[in-house]
Amino acid sequence: MSQQQSNDVEEPVVTEDAISIPKPRGMKTIEVDDELMQDIRELAREKAGTILLNILTDLHAADIGEIVNRLDQEDREFIFNLFDNETASSVLLELDPAVRQELLELLPSEKISNYVGFLASDDATDVVAELEPQVAEEVLEAMPKEDSAEVKELLQYAEDTAGGIMGTEFVSVHNNDTIHRAIRAVREQAKEQQTIYHVYVVNDDGALVGMMPLQSLVLTSPYRRVYKVMEQDVKSVRTDMDQEEVAVMFRKYDLITVPVIDSEGKLVGQITIDDIVDVIEQEHSEDVARMVGSDAEELEHRSPAQIAMLRLPWVLITLLLEFVAGMVVHFFDATLSKVILLASFMPIISALSGNTGLQSAAIVVRGIATGHVSLDRWWQPVIRQFQTTLIIGSVCGFVLGGIAGAWQGKIAFGLVVGLSMFISINISGFVGTCTPMISKRLGFDPAMTAGPFETAFQDVIGITLFLSMATAMLRWIA
Amino acid sequence: MSQQQSNDVEEPVVTEDAISIPKPRGMKTIEVDDELMQDIRELAREKAGTILLNILTDLHAADIGEIVNRLDQEDREFIFNLFDNETASSVLLELDPAVRQELLELLPSEKISNYVGFLASDDATDVVAELEPQVAEEVLEAMPKEDSAEVKELLQYAEDTAGGIMGTEFVSVHNNDTIHRAIRAVREQAKEQQTIYHVYVVNDDGALVGMMPLQSLVLTSPYRRVYKVMEQDVKSVRTDMDQEEVAVMFRKYDLITVPVIDSEGKLVGQITIDDIVDVIEQEHSEDVARMVGSDAEELEHRSPAQIAMLRLPWVLITLLLEFVAGMVVHFFDATLSKVILLASFMPIISALSGNTGLQSAAIVVRGIATGHVSLDRWWQPVIRQFQTTLIIGSVCGFVLGGIAGAWQGKIAFGLVVGLSMFISINISGFVGTCTPMISKRLGFDPAMTAGPFETAFQDVIGITLFLSMATAMLRWIA
Repeated sequence: MSQQQSNDVEEPVVTEDAISIPKPRGMKTIEVDDELMQDIRELAREKAGTILLNILTDLHAADIGEIVNRLDQEDREFIFNLFDNETASSVLLELDPAVRQELLELLPSEKISNYVGFLASDDATDVVAELEPQVAEEVLEAMPKEDSAEVKELLQYAEDTAGGIMGTEFVSVHNNDTIHRAIRAVREQAKEQQTIYHVYVVNDDGALVGMMPLQSLVLTSPYRRVYKVMEQDVKSVRTDMDQEEVAVMFRKYDLITVPVIDSEGKLVGQITIDDIVDVIEQEHSEDVARMVGSDAEELEHRSPAQIAMLRLPWVLITLLLEFVAGMVVHFFDATLSKVILLASFMPIISALSGNTGLQSAAIVVRGIATGHVSLDRWWQPVIRQFQTTLIIGSVCGFVLGGIAGAWQGKIAFGLVVGLSMFISINISGFVGTCTPMISKRLGFDPAMTAGPFETAFQDVIGITLFLSMATAMLRWIA
Repeated sequence: MSQQQSNDVEEPVVTEDAISIPKPRGMKTIEVDDELMQDIRELAREKAGTILLNILTDLHAADIGEIVNRLDQEDREFIFNLFDNETASSVLLELDPAVRQELLELLPSEKISNYVGFLASDDATDVVAELEPQVAEEVLEAMPKEDSAEVKELLQYAEDTAGGIMGTEFVSVHNNDTIHRAIRAVREQAKEQQTIYHVYVVNDDGALVGMMPLQSLVLTSPYRRVYKVMEQDVKSVRTDMDQEEVAVMFRKYDLITVPVIDSEGKLVGQITIDDIVDVIEQEHSEDVARMVGSDAEELEHRSPAQIAMLRLPWVLITLLLEFVAGMVVHFFDATLSKVILLASFMPIISALSGNTGLQSAAIVVRGIATGHVSLDRWWQPVIRQFQTTLIIGSVCGFVLGGIAGAWQGKIAFGLVVGLSMFISINISGFVGTCTPMISKRLGFDPAMTAGPFETAFQDVIGITLFLSMATAMLRWIA
């Protein structure tokens, strides 16, 4: 797209002795396949450290992390100990939490301090937060004062707030500085950072007053004052803002970074989009897990006993609700024993309507999350889902009613089965659509009410409806 | 963090006449609440155009988009027509697809061309792709040749490939250029773009050979040659790469942008992280929808009839599977009519085990998506889920068996109910864990097999198990 004509009228702002940007370590990316793993395992067993280092050293830390994840503990330890501190620190970040924990438990605090010292403040904080309290203290003790102060400060913020995900690495300049000085500030601060996207502007009190994209340093006359070229409408978040709200903001305004301010408006950190992608992923996992009656924490390598404890409350509530369904069946024992074939259609009706309810609920939960569903216009999804279930209910009612009528040899029996199917699919779609919106309005997580409750509740309704209709029509269906 | 000392030894590279970066339009962000909407509706009804423009003009396009979304059609049209072309074009992008379509249908092709002309190539392509073929042609006709050629080129790529989401706006320099010339290239190309993150390096054939972060332009001597300072290990994707694979790459390597090359290695476009965030959201919607037996397309404002057609195949397959469960019940009619209370426990057992299966499946599907679950180590989730369901199954079996035994007044009855509960929860957790991994290995979408099939299949197993045990123990439970 470019190839410029030579037309060098302007003088350089940076001379030959300029700081060169820190060359990132290995950046080559590969596919970690079974064959490669086989080779690496063999080399690890032969303790062929030099060859291994030759293979691994040029790779991107994410790939090395994947390889280390896939090794068994002994090989893992051997290979990890080959790395220099800088490599080890970036690989550490890429490991599965469980693998990282195992490795960290084997390492002396001093070594951990060395690794943590190479990390960006937010990553360093995450690693320290994962350590046993006593080890964490030793690690912080062994770190340079400046670094440990940063980490200690970040540790104070709740994990799921803007403060908890921000880093303290950012480039800021004073609003009275010239662009020329701003460039020098970027140069000095660039030593610590791989990529800079924006330069923030603060006033005498350290309060955030503006922002400049990095390119404006290249594009503006160096003699101009920062406050004349900066953007004043800068979006910022407070340290105590919920991380999910921060994520919504990133998505809505297509942000790459956002500055974080404390309660007095002082610039204290920066959140970058890669951390937000993690928040979005975490949010997704939470939604899925809650929709089926578990918790996102389940994904984070908890012990089976802990997972069972997470799930059991929901399971037992579902059991209770289903027990109500069982009592309904019991209430209609007389009808059932007269027309035992009803028992064959019970599971079909409750499964299909439960499923329809779950579909509607899942679609609405997702719609709320993506903004496709707005509570202001709650009737829109209700009408859409209702029109949809009218069609699905008709088809299912017709098919199942037809089969039932033919099987029992009585039109009335087909009518009871078909009509129950039709009605309960529609009720269930309606309830499934409304429940998440009502929970949201009441301030609960819509995903939490979408799953097992929905199906259990639908079982009670479906079975009651089916068996009462059958009882009412008993003389024609028996 | 910064405040530099004055120490201006170097000369400026950019003089006073430098191009100033295009100041983005409104950037102020607000909370769009009911009160604001009320005011805006009133003003729209009074046709108070100037006041409305005063309110709206400073806002971020995303906020204006939210406001326009929430208006009814008449007010919406009035307000939209107030905007200048540039504002209208950015607001257009922020609208719900359905709202956008309604608006576009009302506009003459020429006006649409004006709007599209202001958009980045990838956004322009998305808007044109949404138009009726004939309108699209007229719009492209009315656009400047250069812009329409770009859009036409982008339209050729499949929507869900790297080519389909890339933009043609990027900054590239020749590998033999000096840094000084590269800065000029950025200046010239910056006119078209709001934010530049990286500068790509190409050779004589236009092939991508390297990359520089923007800051290296500020940090390196302007006399050096580009090829000496560029990073050579640059990650790129081919136009035909699946967008989900691109998203995986962004996440794994924490990328902000990635260059796109054609089959001959020529640099043709760039993908930025905000488009990837959309891909991640879309992917997740797809997973959730498939897990409940629908399709992600359902979220995109399809007609109820179309949604019903999307869902019906899955519903009917579920009906078929559930019908098998019904036949199993029928097979055990004799047992059921002797111990009618069994019918009360049937729905409880099938619901709880179905639910456990869905939990395991959802957790594994999500684990595969996030990389927590690797098929190489398939036994890890199987063992974990199995240990978990052992605990959950024991608790549920114990509770339900206790209730059942007490109710019927027979220990054997409690034993049959409790044991069936315990066994079917464990089978169901096992099947739920394995099915998504097997589908993945076979090349299917793991989410597709997680939902209704899982529960229907579990109904058949749970009911068969329960009623055969009851039949075997009939003489002790009746």
